[in-house]
Amino acid sequence: MSGTAERALGVHRVLEPRGALPQAADRLDADPAIGPDEVRVAVQRLNLDAASFRQLSESCAGDGAAVRAAVLGIVAARGKMQNPVTGSGGMLIGVVDAVGPDSPLGLTVGQRVATLVSLTLTPLRLTDGLAGWDGLGEQVPAAGTAILFARSIAAVLPDDLPDAVSLALLDVCGAPAATARVVARDRARSVTVLGAAGKSGCLSLAAARDAGATELTGLVRDGAEAAALTRAGLADRVVVADATDPLAVAAAVGTPADVTVVCVDVPGAEHGAVLATAEGGTVVFFSMATSFSAAALGAEGMAADVTMLIGNGYTPGHAALALELYRRTAGVRALVDPRVRR
Amino acid sequence: MSGTAERALGVHRVLEPRGALPQAADRLDADPAIGPDEVRVAVQRLNLDAASFRQLSESCAGDGAAVRAAVLGIVAARGKMQNPVTGSGGMLIGVVDAVGPDSPLGLTVGQRVATLVSLTLTPLRLTDGLAGWDGLGEQVPAAGTAILFARSIAAVLPDDLPDAVSLALLDVCGAPAATARVVARDRARSVTVLGAAGKSGCLSLAAARDAGATELTGLVRDGAEAAALTRAGLADRVVVADATDPLAVAAAVGTPADVTVVCVDVPGAEHGAVLATAEGGTVVFFSMATSFSAAALGAEGMAADVTMLIGNGYTPGHAALALELYRRTAGVRALVDPRVRR
Repeated sequence: MSGTAERALGVHRVLEPRGALPQAADRLDADPAIGPDEVRVAVQRLNLDAASFRQLSESCAGDGAAVRAAVLGIVAARGKMQNPVTGSGGMLIGVVDAVGPDSPLGLTVGQRVATLVSLTLTPLRLTDGLAGWDGLGEQVPAAGTAILFARSIAAVLPDDLPDAVSLALLDVCGAPAATARVVARDRARSVTVLGAAGKSGCLSLAAARDAGATELTGLVRDGAEAAALTRAGLADRVVVADATDPLAVAAAVGTPADVTVVCVDVPGAEHGAVLATAEGGTVVFFSMATSFSAAALGAEGMAADVTMLIGNGYTPGHAALALELYRRTAGVRALVDPRVRR
Repeated sequence: MSGTAERALGVHRVLEPRGALPQAADRLDADPAIGPDEVRVAVQRLNLDAASFRQLSESCAGDGAAVRAAVLGIVAARGKMQNPVTGSGGMLIGVVDAVGPDSPLGLTVGQRVATLVSLTLTPLRLTDGLAGWDGLGEQVPAAGTAILFARSIAAVLPDDLPDAVSLALLDVCGAPAATARVVARDRARSVTVLGAAGKSGCLSLAAARDAGATELTGLVRDGAEAAALTRAGLADRVVVADATDPLAVAAAVGTPADVTVVCVDVPGAEHGAVLATAEGGTVVFFSMATSFSAAALGAEGMAADVTMLIGNGYTPGHAALALELYRRTAGVRALVDPRVRR
């Protein structure tokens, strides 16, 4: 790998251990002075990963000041906001502050952007002690600087949507893009989404419809979600089951689908997803709670000839697609808006 | 899901917790009396999963008698050989002993078979106290009974190969079958295999060649493996790198491949595999040590547009393909034979 390619990944910012990629690194150099291929962002807000925030909050017994101190401590020690327990980060928004002459990201000073690569690999320095944050929610008003590498990704925030809505959509934009791609590639007609009333779930339903699927089933966990999803009109059929109960999922879904998209954020949905998928079909796992071995051994154990995809958070055009699906689909807006903390 | 479909998966054999699938169950009913859709196998040998055997051996400080007692204890308590620490099992060979009138497996009494579904879901009763096993190796001579469900899979052992060779091949037969399918589907020209000198690795190289790939790279960990793989003639190019060092992998592989197959059985190979794969390409993860989140977040963090597959141990025709590749490929035999404990 060339030195330029390594720089593009941010390897030159890794302090410890040397030679690691930024995400795997213990400590990054968050110096605000940028190299020729880098971009500096003046940070306005961090959006902590839900699992990370929950862990911090629980370990601090809900004491907001302690949570704030914990986040400050992590960023000071690691040069990035990566929760050492969960390993997860989140994303941030800010204003482009400086652009190196060789940066390929196409950004200009003054643009408001959201980073679409994880905070787990973004050099970050905080300068305000997070004085504007009560430590009680995932959205963290913040001042400081973040660094984007040549191979980072940032989306310019649209003018027509509230930031909180854009962030909520960009946070899960990998799911609808990957769903659309799989449906188009497989020419899938039937698609089932597990966890269909959530952000990634409802966007995936809309993306599947868009990509040509004609029989959409949304599986949700209870009657309230079923009513909301039915009102939203994104699925042809709404069924209720515990996604972690394989036989219940199979019974609720009935005829297996060409493509099953897993958007439930709890462990144990692998076997139900496999059973809900037709022979020769595809399962796309978007839940970070997915167990690789449970999926692999489960499919083998059931002699299920299904293709199983690890949901990749990056697909070209994913940000634009998610924003567009929100803008033009009333049902997506109806499900996403109540989940946005403004 | 119908009662018949549930029976086919073996749900009726689950004692605890009720409603679980056999693999997820704590305890199975290993009663040798079969139902109309079941098959009983007279067990001759267990082939313990390598990770499971290693864990048992280490926890017993290498004391074979203690390992034997541990295996007997697990099977007696759970009605199956599923290591409660690693969660893994293995496979078994035996002779078909009884076939229910409604079994769809096509087996007849007297056939020697290997089970291709995991021991983690196979009802098992041992009757010889494993008296013929010293507890020092994964191959366990055993007597007792195992039950196959309607949706289980068993391969009839071929007459022309030693059992140990057949078992070694059947143990990893999912990898070459899935590799062949991906190469054919993607019309891939270039394929890189990480861990190419191992059983699943060399079979995957042969399968990729067979499926039409023309530029094969085998990555191995040291000079000895490189020499062996070069002699075997299965790869167009043999490179040496630590698969867990992403930058070293990328540097060794050079031009990224259309398809990368991960057959190294250690954690941490995800990011190297992603970097070694061309934009729009596919990574197939066959290592049970793969971390779902490391793969998903890594690809996103590097803005890598790659499709990532969870290697499914089952693909129709996988057993026959692996045996056939071994029979007709001298290079596969040269690499597999030394790894077979006879």
